[in-house]
Amino acid sequence: MAVWNGRFKKSLDEEALKFSSSIELDSRMYNEDIDGSISHVKMLAKQKIISVAESKKIIKAIEEIRKEIANGEYQIDWTKEDIHSAVEERLVRKIGDVGKKLHTARSRNDQVALDERLFLKKEINLTIKLISDLQKSLFKKAEKYKSVIVPGYTHLQRAQPILFAHHLIAYIEMLERDKERLKDCLKRGDKSPLGAAAFAGTSLPIDRNYTAELLGFSGIVDNSIDAVSSRDLIIEFISATSIIMMNLSRLSEEFILWSSSEFSFAQTDDAYATGSSLMPQKKNPDFAELIRGKSGRVFGALTGMLTLMKGLPLAYNRDMQEDKYHLITALDTTKDCLKIAANMIDHTEFKADRFEEELTGDLSLATDLLDYLVRKNVPFREAHHLVGKIVALCVERGIKLNQLELSEYKKFSSAFEKDLYSLLHPMSSIKKKISAGGASPKEVNRALRKWKRKLSSE
Amino acid sequence: MAVWNGRFKKSLDEEALKFSSSIELDSRMYNEDIDGSISHVKMLAKQKIISVAESKKIIKAIEEIRKEIANGEYQIDWTKEDIHSAVEERLVRKIGDVGKKLHTARSRNDQVALDERLFLKKEINLTIKLISDLQKSLFKKAEKYKSVIVPGYTHLQRAQPILFAHHLIAYIEMLERDKERLKDCLKRGDKSPLGAAAFAGTSLPIDRNYTAELLGFSGIVDNSIDAVSSRDLIIEFISATSIIMMNLSRLSEEFILWSSSEFSFAQTDDAYATGSSLMPQKKNPDFAELIRGKSGRVFGALTGMLTLMKGLPLAYNRDMQEDKYHLITALDTTKDCLKIAANMIDHTEFKADRFEEELTGDLSLATDLLDYLVRKNVPFREAHHLVGKIVALCVERGIKLNQLELSEYKKFSSAFEKDLYSLLHPMSSIKKKISAGGASPKEVNRALRKWKRKLSSE
Amino acid sequence: MAVWNGRFKKSLDEEALKFSSSIELDSRMYNEDIDGSISHVKMLAKQKIISVAESKKIIKAIEEIRKEIANGEYQIDWTKEDIHSAVEERLVRKIGDVGKKLHTARSRNDQVALDERLFLKKEINLTIKLISDLQKSLFKKAEKYKSVIVPGYTHLQRAQPILFAHHLIAYIEMLERDKERLKDCLKRGDKSPLGAAAFAGTSLPIDRNYTAELLGFSGIVDNSIDAVSSRDLIIEFISATSIIMMNLSRLSEEFILWSSSEFSFAQTDDAYATGSSLMPQKKNPDFAELIRGKSGRVFGALTGMLTLMKGLPLAYNRDMQEDKYHLITALDTTKDCLKIAANMIDHTEFKADRFEEELTGDLSLATDLLDYLVRKNVPFREAHHLVGKIVALCVERGIKLNQLELSEYKKFSSAFEKDLYSLLHPMSSIKKKISAGGASPKEVNRALRKWKRKLSSE
Amino acid sequence: MAVWNGRFKKSLDEEALKFSSSIELDSRMYNEDIDGSISHVKMLAKQKIISVAESKKIIKAIEEIRKEIANGEYQIDWTKEDIHSAVEERLVRKIGDVGKKLHTARSRNDQVALDERLFLKKEINLTIKLISDLQKSLFKKAEKYKSVIVPGYTHLQRAQPILFAHHLIAYIEMLERDKERLKDCLKRGDKSPLGAAAFAGTSLPIDRNYTAELLGFSGIVDNSIDAVSSRDLIIEFISATSIIMMNLSRLSEEFILWSSSEFSFAQTDDAYATGSSLMPQKKNPDFAELIRGKSGRVFGALTGMLTLMKGLPLAYNRDMQEDKYHLITALDTTKDCLKIAANMIDHTEFKADRFEEELTGDLSLATDLLDYLVRKNVPFREAHHLVGKIVALCVERGIKLNQLELSEYKKFSSAFEKDLYSLLHPMSSIKKKISAGGASPKEVNRALRKWKRKLSSE
Repeated sequence: MAVWNGRFKKSLDEEALKFSSSIELDSRMYNEDIDGSISHVKMLAKQKIISVAESKKIIKAIEEIRKEIANGEYQIDWTKEDIHSAVEERLVRKIGDVGKKLHTARSRNDQVALDERLFLKKEINLTIKLISDLQKSLFKKAEKYKSVIVPGYTHLQRAQPILFAHHLIAYIEMLERDKERLKDCLKRGDKSPLGAAAFAGTSLPIDRNYTAELLGFSGIVDNSIDAVSSRDLIIEFISATSIIMMNLSRLSEEFILWSSSEFSFAQTDDAYATGSSLMPQKKNPDFAELIRGKSGRVFGALTGMLTLMKGLPLAYNRDMQEDKYHLITALDTTKDCLKIAANMIDHTEFKADRFEEELTGDLSLATDLLDYLVRKNVPFREAHHLVGKIVALCVERGIKLNQLELSEYKKFSSAFEKDLYSLLHPMSSIKKKISAGGASPKEVNRALRKWKRKLSSE
Repeated sequence: MAVWNGRFKKSLDEEALKFSSSIELDSRMYNEDIDGSISHVKMLAKQKIISVAESKKIIKAIEEIRKEIANGEYQIDWTKEDIHSAVEERLVRKIGDVGKKLHTARSRNDQVALDERLFLKKEINLTIKLISDLQKSLFKKAEKYKSVIVPGYTHLQRAQPILFAHHLIAYIEMLERDKERLKDCLKRGDKSPLGAAAFAGTSLPIDRNYTAELLGFSGIVDNSIDAVSSRDLIIEFISATSIIMMNLSRLSEEFILWSSSEFSFAQTDDAYATGSSLMPQKKNPDFAELIRGKSGRVFGALTGMLTLMKGLPLAYNRDMQEDKYHLITALDTTKDCLKIAANMIDHTEFKADRFEEELTGDLSLATDLLDYLVRKNVPFREAHHLVGKIVALCVERGIKLNQLELSEYKKFSSAFEKDLYSLLHPMSSIKKKISAGGASPKEVNRALRKWKRKLSSE
Repeated sequence: MAVWNGRFKKSLDEEALKFSSSIELDSRMYNEDIDGSISHVKMLAKQKIISVAESKKIIKAIEEIRKEIANGEYQIDWTKEDIHSAVEERLVRKIGDVGKKLHTARSRNDQVALDERLFLKKEINLTIKLISDLQKSLFKKAEKYKSVIVPGYTHLQRAQPILFAHHLIAYIEMLERDKERLKDCLKRGDKSPLGAAAFAGTSLPIDRNYTAELLGFSGIVDNSIDAVSSRDLIIEFISATSIIMMNLSRLSEEFILWSSSEFSFAQTDDAYATGSSLMPQKKNPDFAELIRGKSGRVFGALTGMLTLMKGLPLAYNRDMQEDKYHLITALDTTKDCLKIAANMIDHTEFKADRFEEELTGDLSLATDLLDYLVRKNVPFREAHHLVGKIVALCVERGIKLNQLELSEYKKFSSAFEKDLYSLLHPMSSIKKKISAGGASPKEVNRALRKWKRKLSSE
Repeated sequence: MAVWNGRFKKSLDEEALKFSSSIELDSRMYNEDIDGSISHVKMLAKQKIISVAESKKIIKAIEEIRKEIANGEYQIDWTKEDIHSAVEERLVRKIGDVGKKLHTARSRNDQVALDERLFLKKEINLTIKLISDLQKSLFKKAEKYKSVIVPGYTHLQRAQPILFAHHLIAYIEMLERDKERLKDCLKRGDKSPLGAAAFAGTSLPIDRNYTAELLGFSGIVDNSIDAVSSRDLIIEFISATSIIMMNLSRLSEEFILWSSSEFSFAQTDDAYATGSSLMPQKKNPDFAELIRGKSGRVFGALTGMLTLMKGLPLAYNRDMQEDKYHLITALDTTKDCLKIAANMIDHTEFKADRFEEELTGDLSLATDLLDYLVRKNVPFREAHHLVGKIVALCVERGIKLNQLELSEYKKFSSAFEKDLYSLLHPMSSIKKKISAGGASPKEVNRALRKWKRKLSSE
């Protein structure tokens, strides 16, 4: 029996009930629902809307229900319309008429808005923790491989040599902004919608600030219509997780590249790779691939959530129930991927000596020749052009930059001297990148110290 | 133990296995997987790759497994990597070494591609059936209310009166194209990928056309790499369901409008509406709202699926496992919404006399005045301008078109005669719309007959 | 001639150049590009990488170019690869070899990242201003119509009467969060990427903090790879505009409803409505419809931007050039819609007396009867059920709540007394909603005062 | 002056006009608009709604306008509301009152629906042509490099050797389905909406079939409301282009990989690559990157178009004007990318000898060992396990499969004989893949002949 059936002469069609039930998703929020109800009941008693004795009876019973749900004694199924009805129905069965007072001065509209905010609060904090864990995994590898040289790429072309640590720290920085975005969302959501009732408030003498305080909010949502009509926080959260997944998809792409025969850089532990049912030699970077692919779920949730809210008039519309589907899809996917990404990194080692020799004299040191000329006062654009010609010559001959004779160099510019060859080692190139935040070991070590400090306190 | 663990020294981490398992989704395809395996085994025997006795043994056992899954005796859980492994593992447990021959000349890559095509084939046909059912529900109401007059709207402004049947038939037409799109997708998918193996085919003397025939395909996918690498059919299917959901979201929007106090046109049976936990008078069009909102899930699946496939190199990548998530989200949501939409319409009646009187003399008959002038040879643009002025006058005075005196009409144009008033009834306006496919009862009746014929044979 | 053609033996194919040129979009950022270059040159001089005389010469010429672009003297067309090349080419033509030093210690990678941040900074501030303007337009109407009663809706069903001002303030609150989101994005973006060069920093002794300070940034992006590889800020910005557009689409939907014959509430000035080429009586809420529809452009830009970045390895990839397309689509559309929405509201009046009489005794006062019973100690759920029955009776008889006799009320509950009729006026209902942020005039007036204060200082 | 201003007392606000004008986009359809008008006028004369003389006068003038637009004499700017008004206004200026008869029995609603269908028809055919061109470019390379061996990849891991031609043909197959999808869309769109007028048809004795025939349609859209309300064809078209772009993004990803130092397979002509403003050695695969990135525009258009149509009531709403934005974005982007992709392939050569030696004895031949054992009657799963162990041993020792002694092989299985070494050449592996559509030269040559035949007739 639904909580609203007074004016109705027939019960809801069973198929229709199944279609409209949100219980599978909102039962995830049973703890938040119960926390909200307890605070609401305390307030009702304080305001003398119900008696203290009644409030105690309700709270005792509702805490029992919490346990019953937790240990599986009370199994919530789809015949309940939603978690709110499921709890209330159980309550009335337990303590009779007094239980019917729980919903006094409340509507499911403000109740669900409250549950979602409490849930979001908890889950954002958990997500931030998982991001920190991933940063720590990246940091450990950065520290371990801090003197390992790799090619830096632009357009997937070797561009300039860098330290692998420098590359990994870039991801740590990106993830730090991901945490900030989540914190900003949390800050905006830190207000209680409870007491907005259906959307117009109530005639009963409730105290909204009291429940807000009991529940740990910094204040209340000031307009009762806004409190039940808005879902911008959910969209903001899914946007933030979409950006996280975008970042993880990039990291995953690189893992997949590094694991290929051609790049031959990453070696993943057997516990974090899979094989082929047909090809016995395969060892596949499945986890990186799955993370990359699961970005689709989260981007899809964002499209879905925006579609959902597009063009809805105020205040509450039943469409909005679907927000939990998109929220939970984005949340679960992102948390899982963060966890797996950290594990994947923990289970991967890198071939320290993969690139150093290959990069000696490599064309990716051309910028160093260019800087050399600039320092000798050749205008930048001219120097660029000259070195371009030198590169073309090497490509034509199939040689490296350090295999070209000085006499040849001099044909391009008299500014070239013998000391140019000392530039043609990747570490020499890296050491020169002394600008703030640049590739030099000094700067990379500074960054490692910075992150050691920051992450150790998280 | 995974089916591929020869070269591995450790088993997959448990959390990783859970993350990568697709069993929850692909167990939906166990029948297709088993059908595919049986055909494969028959072919292996026909080609003497295994003996006839072996094939019989395998087929018998695999049919038992089908029953065990159907009746819950064999419960497939996430510890199996996927449905293919789950079936094969069970098979080997049942019949030992012979079972290990099932996967001969096959890879999970072509196997999953096959399962998806068989599944899609079955489900497209079911979806088409549900669209027909919805068309029939719409048709029944169109027939029942075929002489009911409603305002036709553009910009949600009353524009010209029409028959409600004409409006409902527009949806039947749209849905017919939805069926055609699904059929086109089916046609394109009607080719067997089995035998592509990992992606390069196999050295064993298989007969791909034979398995294709056994499985009811019209042919084979001609390029073995294409067979396992492509997922365009899945995207095409999700696009087609997105368009269905777009159409349903429009129908739902109209139901919601029609159910409002302001429109007061639709009356939904109690079995297909819900109430409010707080406001006792509420009777809400929840099902229309949920259908409208669930368009978000399907549009999201489309974004997700496109995101997934973007930039993936050939041939198979593990990301592609995620296609089943988006496929099943789109499929289940669309099927449910089609079913519920039909039920909702079946459970709704319309107030036949809601609009007729209100539309008599209404401004939405202005086009009839305009046509009147055009027939009296006033150039179109001039007539439009004159009738615009007349409308402005009526709005200013707060009167209807039939409340304006003839003398006043004549001030605007001497072409106006007394017979103009006979135009100012909605049915008179409707009857005049004699153009093919237009609003006239004659044309609407013709369309009703057309659809009666078409739908009765489905 | 491209700025990079040293190693190339052929020029770029013309069609290819056209395809790859970003000039149409990035020429929008010419001011930012020039500001960045000037700061860069000042720093180069301070650090003695170029001479003071050279820097002065360059700055003078580049300021001339700024004017030439502004007044159309220098027309930038697609034959330039991008705005950076266009400016540099002009510079060299003006001052010869010295101009070639401009790009010293800089890459287009950090240059474009800088331009985008400067551009975003300026545009976010402009967008915030436009939101404030829209809030002011809403506020003016809220104040003007502050005693006007309208039905509050849930599920588009009349739910409880409210003041129109309360409804409008809900939008002001939503828009305030939109501003906050933009400010958070700005805060995160307030760091200079200049000096990251291609992605590895430079060997020249640049001072990144100095350019950051000259350009008004609070600091530098600390990792040079992150500085040129990341586009999360752009995505965050487009997310924030998507939420704005979602909010505007809801407001627009309500405008469209309010403008319909059925709702008959909004009356838009002729200067903000359009007609029909065929139907002379039409006066359409086109601007609300266009705003609602243009949400598609911005949501599409978000999908596009996420698609773009999915799976890109570090550092810079040419795909990332497309970010400007999505950024500018989202930005221009949102700014236009904010402006037009404010104008639309300014040009609309509302029928103050539209609803009050209709709502007297209306079923949407049922909650007031319910609260009445609760105050008389009937348990909430029981009271809900009783009032539901009363509503059903009124619906059956086709009467309003104030048309039902007291004797009939008493059949449902002896708690009903004559004073119940005093509840059945919408203003009486509204006055009772005394909870914080609720519908009562007291609370609404408080909110009006709050917003008057806040908005007057913006 | 707008074509609808009769009832209006003020003109539209200028900023509002600019905001609402669609002229920039729909002027792209001026030819279609004029074709539609001419057919409409011919029909009006045939039906004696206007005189033959009038029709001739209008047609003559309208053909002049076509030329004026084509040669720039008549410049259409945003002050015209749309292309329909622009043409009509010019017409009236040219021939006075007779021109005002053009719009008789027509509305902009059916007119724009017609223009879009005519435009789509033309553009779909052009797009199909561009796909054929791309297939031809791929085919030429497939033929040229038909005996070149490359590793086939799954999970970006080397899996089994294949012929490069086989790989390229996979794309030709995918693109063929892209053409079919466009043709199906064309087929569905091949019906004329003209004559639906605003949405209800008209009272004038028009002949819809006659105009349909003149314009080359196979029939008429049968329901007048459907004719002006539906945009499913546009969504279907954008879906089809999204799938094209998805396919192109995959091809582009592979080009980028092949162009990297690590893969070192593709060599793009200087005319189809770009350099770096900073790093003189760079030669970047920008065109592949841009195509990959531009998938975002088209996926975004699809999201945008679905968002647009979600929840719109029938019949026409102004939001729908935005369909042209998404249509043209998807169309132009896809056509450009198809063209550039074909050029890119034409300008790229591949290193024929890149992989053959490297693949001799490579682990990617492990499946051949497996098949060897299966042929010697080792059950499939057991054989897989054994070869897995052999691979693990080779990896541990850092040797290739052909570097392992026969005595060692025999430790794993006595079935191994000396002839196993003959398997360990990539061409030997490829030749064995004799299954239909498989990797064998025979099958690849058959496919080449098939495509030669098919493509030569296009």
